[in-house]
Amino acid sequence: MDNQNQGCTKRDVAGASFSIHPMSDRFIEIIKSALNEVDTRKVHMNTDDVSTTVRGNLIQVFDVTKAMFLHAAKTGEHVAFQATYSLGCPGDSKAEAYIANDQIPLNAELVNGINQYIAAKFALYPLGDGNYMDVIHKQIEAIRKYVTVSAANYSTRLDGDALAIFEGLEQVFKAVVKSGSSHTVMTVSISANSPSHENISTVIA
Amino acid sequence: MDNQNQGCTKRDVAGASFSIHPMSDRFIEIIKSALNEVDTRKVHMNTDDVSTTVRGNLIQVFDVTKAMFLHAAKTGEHVAFQATYSLGCPGDSKAEAYIANDQIPLNAELVNGINQYIAAKFALYPLGDGNYMDVIHKQIEAIRKYVTVSAANYSTRLDGDALAIFEGLEQVFKAVVKSGSSHTVMTVSISANSPSHENISTVIA
Repeated sequence: MDNQNQGCTKRDVAGASFSIHPMSDRFIEIIKSALNEVDTRKVHMNTDDVSTTVRGNLIQVFDVTKAMFLHAAKTGEHVAFQATYSLGCPGDSKAEAYIANDQIPLNAELVNGINQYIAAKFALYPLGDGNYMDVIHKQIEAIRKYVTVSAANYSTRLDGDALAIFEGLEQVFKAVVKSGSSHTVMTVSISANSPSHENISTVIA
Repeated sequence: MDNQNQGCTKRDVAGASFSIHPMSDRFIEIIKSALNEVDTRKVHMNTDDVSTTVRGNLIQVFDVTKAMFLHAAKTGEHVAFQATYSLGCPGDSKAEAYIANDQIPLNAELVNGINQYIAAKFALYPLGDGNYMDVIHKQIEAIRKYVTVSAANYSTRLDGDALAIFEGLEQVFKAVVKSGSSHTVMTVSISANSPSHENISTVIA
């Protein structure tokens, strides 16, 4: 693919558009509280009525989104999390100013003690690549190292501890970027504290 | 792209993985009620703890997802809707049995009277195509016919009436498929009845 024609930048700017949906009358309080607890100094973050955008170094983007989700989920309320992670052309050229050069995540230590069972579905979209299915299948195999994997329609299902799942997602996303994909997109849907999980959560508690 | 190598089917099977998140203690009641009001006889539908999958003819898939969202949103509760629409390889070969050959949507008439302001973000991912950005930019222009369009990070923002927005989304998705994309993916995030919309909703009421 001709990166120039697609208006790409080669800088290592990642981003995510994500949203947290607490199925609770207290949804505003839960979201605001999570926002307050997360250190966002190393990213550029912007929230509107549909979603929140976070941009910066890939490590910081995963750190902030993971922490936002965990702080919301630890309330015990049924919380859904949706995110689209993106790295590469074409939308990120203006985001270069937001990159923090250091690779130390600010929130990792604070959330490492949170045990949270989740069910997740993720999909990888390496754009502009004719062999994209090979890239996807390789990463579905790779994420088995972190978490229980099963087939789902239009995605791959992951069951287990939130920290392990986020670690796996970050690693497969990085692997696709390193494999040379010029524009990598990954969607993630997570369900925490669902009434449907009651029989499952005891397994990993 | 060699469709054979990617395990594609050429049949016209579309699908969506979607979820509805009412930000309310009544979330179970709202979701169950929406499920009861939608006629799903022409699609194959399966719900688990993360999302609902619907498969069938493209027209029926949009008809069912639109109706599910509108029936949930008409409760007046703050409702978020997330969907990934997909058509093409590789996952749909087993879904051919679920195609209803007729093109008449079962729910369109029932929901046509529902006026619902929404804010939405959508992203198109034509996979396996080196010129995917041209395809995307063309469709962002095309959807202006239906609704107010503005730029967003990693997506395109749409503001307006839900029926017009769903019509626009269906048309751009169809156009990408007809342009020859062998695997078309579109993600949609919608927010209805958000406390942040109070000033906006009067505009289209």
